[in-house]
Amino acid sequence: MSESSHSLAPPGASMAEVHAGNRERLAAALRAHLTAAGRPLSGIVLLQGGEEQTRYCTDHVPLFRQESYFAYLFGVREPGFYGAVDIASGHSILFAPRLSPDDAIWNGKPKKLPHFKDMYKVDSAFHVDELAQVLRCEFSEHGHGEPLLFLLHGRNTDSGNYSRPASFEGMDKFDTDLTTLHPILTECRVTKSDMELALIQHANDVSSEAHVEVMRRIKPGMTENQLESIFRFHASMHEGCQRCAYTCICATGQNSSILHYGQNDGAVNDEYNFYAFDITCSYPTNGKFTRDQAVVYNAALKAHNDVISRMR
Amino acid sequence: MSESSHSLAPPGASMAEVHAGNRERLAAALRAHLTAAGRPLSGIVLLQGGEEQTRYCTDHVPLFRQESYFAYLFGVREPGFYGAVDIASGHSILFAPRLSPDDAIWNGKPKKLPHFKDMYKVDSAFHVDELAQVLRCEFSEHGHGEPLLFLLHGRNTDSGNYSRPASFEGMDKFDTDLTTLHPILTECRVTKSDMELALIQHANDVSSEAHVEVMRRIKPGMTENQLESIFRFHASMHEGCQRCAYTCICATGQNSSILHYGQNDGAVNDEYNFYAFDITCSYPTNGKFTRDQAVVYNAALKAHNDVISRMR
Repeated sequence: MSESSHSLAPPGASMAEVHAGNRERLAAALRAHLTAAGRPLSGIVLLQGGEEQTRYCTDHVPLFRQESYFAYLFGVREPGFYGAVDIASGHSILFAPRLSPDDAIWNGKPKKLPHFKDMYKVDSAFHVDELAQVLRCEFSEHGHGEPLLFLLHGRNTDSGNYSRPASFEGMDKFDTDLTTLHPILTECRVTKSDMELALIQHANDVSSEAHVEVMRRIKPGMTENQLESIFRFHASMHEGCQRCAYTCICATGQNSSILHYGQNDGAVNDEYNFYAFDITCSYPTNGKFTRDQAVVYNAALKAHNDVISRMR
Repeated sequence: MSESSHSLAPPGASMAEVHAGNRERLAAALRAHLTAAGRPLSGIVLLQGGEEQTRYCTDHVPLFRQESYFAYLFGVREPGFYGAVDIASGHSILFAPRLSPDDAIWNGKPKKLPHFKDMYKVDSAFHVDELAQVLRCEFSEHGHGEPLLFLLHGRNTDSGNYSRPASFEGMDKFDTDLTTLHPILTECRVTKSDMELALIQHANDVSSEAHVEVMRRIKPGMTENQLESIFRFHASMHEGCQRCAYTCICATGQNSSILHYGQNDGAVNDEYNFYAFDITCSYPTNGKFTRDQAVVYNAALKAHNDVISRMR
């Protein structure tokens, strides 16, 4: 396989279209909800994207990964953004951080607003420091006061953690709704569009191929870390998946019984444009099942297939 | 090169000895400082290690990396610890988080206190919920009240961020000193012991070898991400360096002028037992310098050598 080309064709869909489709479905779901509740068909969804972090007190900046709700709606890869969607019209706005000229030394020539408008296919783009004014002017309900802001606040039932509602200077002048958005947006994310399914299928294909590569190269005496290295190298070198969606779990022997073993000292998952797939598989490092291993493997396989057939 | 062995021998020093040496130098430096200031030779250094984080509101847990001051003194690889050093005696104690039995499902059989005492070569080990009581009983100055706690509080001049002083339930009963420890511990970290130098040399050797591997395999048409993949694969597969000390910067063309370009879409650094090295190098992707490239390269080399000779 050539080192400079991908062996698996990435989906043809424009990433910006995927996220524009997600915004449309959210606005439609919110309109349906407000109509059913007899509430006015107005207001603005406002989300705050992730911010750049440093490691403890140091200047080490881990590679930025966007917050997933914000990624779902806007697909923005840079830190420090806000995004708004007008519920009635579906009109979308991105707010980009205003960078100091010195920032260019560290991060390159700053992108201008038209770049973000184009790149992420939103209807308009402003700077974060214009947020309050833009929301007031652009979206004010024909002079009838400040628009109602629908903010994201709710509990992630896997982690028990709460999402952080958007917050900006001057927000105290706006009315906010903290309860409507989270369950509706979360429900939107459960049903995937065809374009999203294509992205997930691609992440799945890349992961599967990398798993097969590990199976080809595994041999007794290798360390778990080395198996993870082979997986990551294959996905990044040949398929452009530079990061895994979760901490890799690549475990041998007794370690395989630990669900979140990540020392690798741990199944590995790939992410493509924020879409990911999770594959777990088990096999003998020397390529041959012992009788005991075959009994356990076939029992697990039967249990798995029973679950799948009951779901259909 | 065999895939299952390291080509570079890691330093022979026991990691626990490296950190024990660091604790000894800190206690000696604090005693010298207190003596010079006419203050009593007593009190306890108390540091809080890093805690496990989740990504935004999700249950995704990025691989834990210890806070560097805590790593320097204790070398602990797990989250949720505290560490103490008695200034007069040099006596050291680790406090491990008390895990629930359910934790074993996710993270494996919990390690017991003697494991941590052995592994990190401290004088004793307790649980975090015993902290206040242990500090009071073990370290109280022969019945003369609570010991003074020296906590880490100070500004990182690279980032402008402040380190977070240790905090635990019951700390309000203790007197604390927030100004003495940070400058002295920071100064200790500047002068490296022979064992530390050996670790840094090893991180340097691994980085250098991985750079050479990239130089061997680079060719026009490859992406920056692929160069990063080759670097990371070599360091992790052959040398056991599973993570880089900084976000990789692997930049071609104009991107090379951006200091912290990390899209790679961005010189790469390796970390070995918390010790790291930073190498930056530039070369033509096709293996041949043009006349212009040679002029710039040689001018940069001359400037670099001038700086080095002035430092000697």
